[in-house]
Amino acid sequence: MPKKILFIMCDQLRFDYLGCTGHPSIKTPNIDALAARGVRFDRTYVQSPICGPSRMSFYTGRYVRSHGSTWNSYPLRVGEMTLGDHLRPLGVRTVLCGKTHMRADLEGMERLGIDMSSDIGALVAECGFEVWDRSDGVVPDGAAGNPSKYKDHLRARGYGGENPWHSAANSGKSDDGEILSGWLLKHAAEPAAIAEEDSETPYTTTRAIEFMEQAKDDSWCLHLSYIKPHWPYIVPAPYHDMYSERDIISVKRSDAELKDPHPLMAGYYGYRYSHAFRRDDVRNAVIPAYMGLITQIDDQIGRLMTYLKQSGQLDETLIVFTSDHGDYLGDHWMGEKELFHDQSARIPMIIVDPSEGADATRGQVITDLTEAIDLAPTFVEFFGGKVPDHILEGRSLLPSLHGNAGPAREYVISEYDYSSRPHLRHLSPDAKSCLLTMVFDGRWKMIWVEGHRPMLYDLETDPDEFNDLGADENHSAEIMRLSNAMFDWARRQHNRVTLSDEKIDNDMCHDDAVEGVYLGFWDEDELAAWKADNSPD
Amino acid sequence: MPKKILFIMCDQLRFDYLGCTGHPSIKTPNIDALAARGVRFDRTYVQSPICGPSRMSFYTGRYVRSHGSTWNSYPLRVGEMTLGDHLRPLGVRTVLCGKTHMRADLEGMERLGIDMSSDIGALVAECGFEVWDRSDGVVPDGAAGNPSKYKDHLRARGYGGENPWHSAANSGKSDDGEILSGWLLKHAAEPAAIAEEDSETPYTTTRAIEFMEQAKDDSWCLHLSYIKPHWPYIVPAPYHDMYSERDIISVKRSDAELKDPHPLMAGYYGYRYSHAFRRDDVRNAVIPAYMGLITQIDDQIGRLMTYLKQSGQLDETLIVFTSDHGDYLGDHWMGEKELFHDQSARIPMIIVDPSEGADATRGQVITDLTEAIDLAPTFVEFFGGKVPDHILEGRSLLPSLHGNAGPAREYVISEYDYSSRPHLRHLSPDAKSCLLTMVFDGRWKMIWVEGHRPMLYDLETDPDEFNDLGADENHSAEIMRLSNAMFDWARRQHNRVTLSDEKIDNDMCHDDAVEGVYLGFWDEDELAAWKADNSPD
Repeated sequence: MPKKILFIMCDQLRFDYLGCTGHPSIKTPNIDALAARGVRFDRTYVQSPICGPSRMSFYTGRYVRSHGSTWNSYPLRVGEMTLGDHLRPLGVRTVLCGKTHMRADLEGMERLGIDMSSDIGALVAECGFEVWDRSDGVVPDGAAGNPSKYKDHLRARGYGGENPWHSAANSGKSDDGEILSGWLLKHAAEPAAIAEEDSETPYTTTRAIEFMEQAKDDSWCLHLSYIKPHWPYIVPAPYHDMYSERDIISVKRSDAELKDPHPLMAGYYGYRYSHAFRRDDVRNAVIPAYMGLITQIDDQIGRLMTYLKQSGQLDETLIVFTSDHGDYLGDHWMGEKELFHDQSARIPMIIVDPSEGADATRGQVITDLTEAIDLAPTFVEFFGGKVPDHILEGRSLLPSLHGNAGPAREYVISEYDYSSRPHLRHLSPDAKSCLLTMVFDGRWKMIWVEGHRPMLYDLETDPDEFNDLGADENHSAEIMRLSNAMFDWARRQHNRVTLSDEKIDNDMCHDDAVEGVYLGFWDEDELAAWKADNSPD
Repeated sequence: MPKKILFIMCDQLRFDYLGCTGHPSIKTPNIDALAARGVRFDRTYVQSPICGPSRMSFYTGRYVRSHGSTWNSYPLRVGEMTLGDHLRPLGVRTVLCGKTHMRADLEGMERLGIDMSSDIGALVAECGFEVWDRSDGVVPDGAAGNPSKYKDHLRARGYGGENPWHSAANSGKSDDGEILSGWLLKHAAEPAAIAEEDSETPYTTTRAIEFMEQAKDDSWCLHLSYIKPHWPYIVPAPYHDMYSERDIISVKRSDAELKDPHPLMAGYYGYRYSHAFRRDDVRNAVIPAYMGLITQIDDQIGRLMTYLKQSGQLDETLIVFTSDHGDYLGDHWMGEKELFHDQSARIPMIIVDPSEGADATRGQVITDLTEAIDLAPTFVEFFGGKVPDHILEGRSLLPSLHGNAGPAREYVISEYDYSSRPHLRHLSPDAKSCLLTMVFDGRWKMIWVEGHRPMLYDLETDPDEFNDLGADENHSAEIMRLSNAMFDWARRQHNRVTLSDEKIDNDMCHDDAVEGVYLGFWDEDELAAWKADNSPD
């Protein structure tokens, strides 16, 4: 059977909300079983702690400042290569089932005459994926929405109303039939007004299994991309009351954080959801639902594993389980994500490589610093391709999976563009300078804030990241060191994407004269002598 | 009559080989007249001191590390916008007559299904130009060549032999009819074996006038791109003996340069043409021919001006005269270009703006630091467009032309990728790190050499750039200051090219809730209160 990759992504799943990553009460036996069968990369960071740019980094294998899609719905420039562009030439179908949050560069496509209705145009518009089913999450009432078949599914299953995606899948219902909107945090504890098997996570799983069943004989990379546990925080029975206040881990926040905070933090504290998640009633309502959504995903992972096993595909399918970023859930006095504390920028990353070569590492936890962009070269290498390292900026994890990893990277980089964020925008004179860059070396985490002082945390003495040392002169040497690392990174070739190092060294780096262009010769004799010396014989 | 731009570029023309830039003996009355009628930007630097990447910066308006075409024939990535993409929507034909040195990204075009034979494909493959005539210079014997109509012209004019482009236009002829190849420096003093009016510079001018004549009623930007005074250094009569040894300015080099040179310089000194240009006989043969080629261009500029005047187009045509880089001609013990001494990286830049608003600045010499990438936004603004400053990285020079320039830029950046250069390649462990970056603030010029110490020149105390202070600890503060400037530059958004700052500020930067996505509300009352407060009424 041909090789396959099942690339599972959750949305907004924190690194520490799994049994195998240490959560004391959440039940994720199927995900834990993946970790036992494969390798868990414990210190993996996203390239941007928000959906769109994080995903564009997963899909392009490039840093955010390289692919340029720096915030949600900032179009991915036409021509930027994605997983499908790298895998299709290896004979691999690269297929989407779920969320990408990609916005196509329609102006660029029009400029280049790429018709959306053509085969190539359809791929370009969908981040290089062959779309089996795409859903970027619940469409608000009245919005144009996205083309998921989930809407039709809900209708076919008899869900009525104007927008059952909202009113059934993402809302509860009161005893007298009133819709209890899942947008409102108070309703997080309600069961969603939908049969569990019709809710988004099982639906997406069913669709993925349908794909795998009809593509058994193909080589494929299936991106199974759940939109949960992302908000709206609401989950159908029996998951809605599987967890309670007693199962919640204690909030991680310190009064020190609120004293004279960095202007970036002060801005972020101003968000309505930051205020909301400071409230115990909010956390007590939301977090059990969030945990229920995760356990629901875990059950669906179980279904997938059963299917792969029964269909005989388990032994050739590499399985990835990860997330696009985390969720503060009240930690550090904040809700949502977007900044660089571990709650937001660190993700779970489990890879099960079915091959014999990986037997020695099964169950290992690897603490080398890992980046989301490492997946793309891993995939290319798994399918036997040569990694185009003039385009892909990550490093293949296959050597780690096979027990022969090279030296670990010295630091991870993560970026954030706050140009569209109302409570932060005032920190920058112009939209193009709204840039944050995290440099983390495994102990020291610096956040470079254009136009302001950097922030700095020492995770060895302050693992909870409560004390910002960025203004402390005693740590200027650390800041200098990490700034230099960032300078090294920023100077790299990020755009010489049309020629590989190998091609340059083999085909381009030669004396001018071999092209028939003769530079620096005085006369016929000199040229003749040179030609004799340089003759191929 | 519609507005027009005549964008004249020479190839390998040094900044100081014009009468108006101070050369004591060269005759360039027509170019000097342009300077008198317009503004000469005295301190203009190219973005890379070699044809391909320099031109790609002129045409894209972006730094080399942004457009990614970092050396000759490194393909310009598909989708990278060029002058034509910016000007065509303003109703401007953007037309090529001469050289671009652009290599199309054929793999990218194929991936995106862009057919070279389509109208759009033809533009993409030709750097966004509508090709009136393209010629990248003499094609060596046996090479596939490029599609210039010049070949046909030579045949039609009766030039025989296998390759008259070489044997007539770029070679002399001995008394007994033997071809004296222009590739050989000894023959530089010979007259080219071609009637002057059939040689490349007049031919290209004639073609340009043909274009202008039939496009009088159009708005256009014509890139008239001479391949001279680039090698082969040979020129037809009467230019071949217009200058002699006595007209040559003295060579600028110092023994100090050869003592313990930076490894980059040592590598560069190893080139055959560096050795050649140390010889007096080489300089005495080549430089008069180089000067003749320049005066020939000057005469053709005179023809162009006469045509524009007689055809009534002078008053609406903005004229640019510039070059893609210089030529060492033996200075600093080197031939060719590629490094960052003024002989190589500094170019002439004259702009004549015909509009009344520019009357006050006619004849001015502006010493503000200027970059090649400043032309693209100048052109957009001249044609009434809004400068897309999320794509174009230069600054419009129109304010300077109109006497109301803002603050000058603090430093210029120029880059060089030596990954294809045999005598330098050993300085880097891999092709992607073969990067040089010049940062020049008008006094201090630092050359950052990846993996090696930087070089540093103080042009105030050492205007000839003989003393590399990069290893001198007394100047570490300057190096730090310029490195910080380079860090600032490297960190910028170079790739968020699909959304303008204006669009972000106007359309994207708003509270989530206006999209119908309600984050951080506890219950219906909170949401209703918020909606009441934020109602558009």
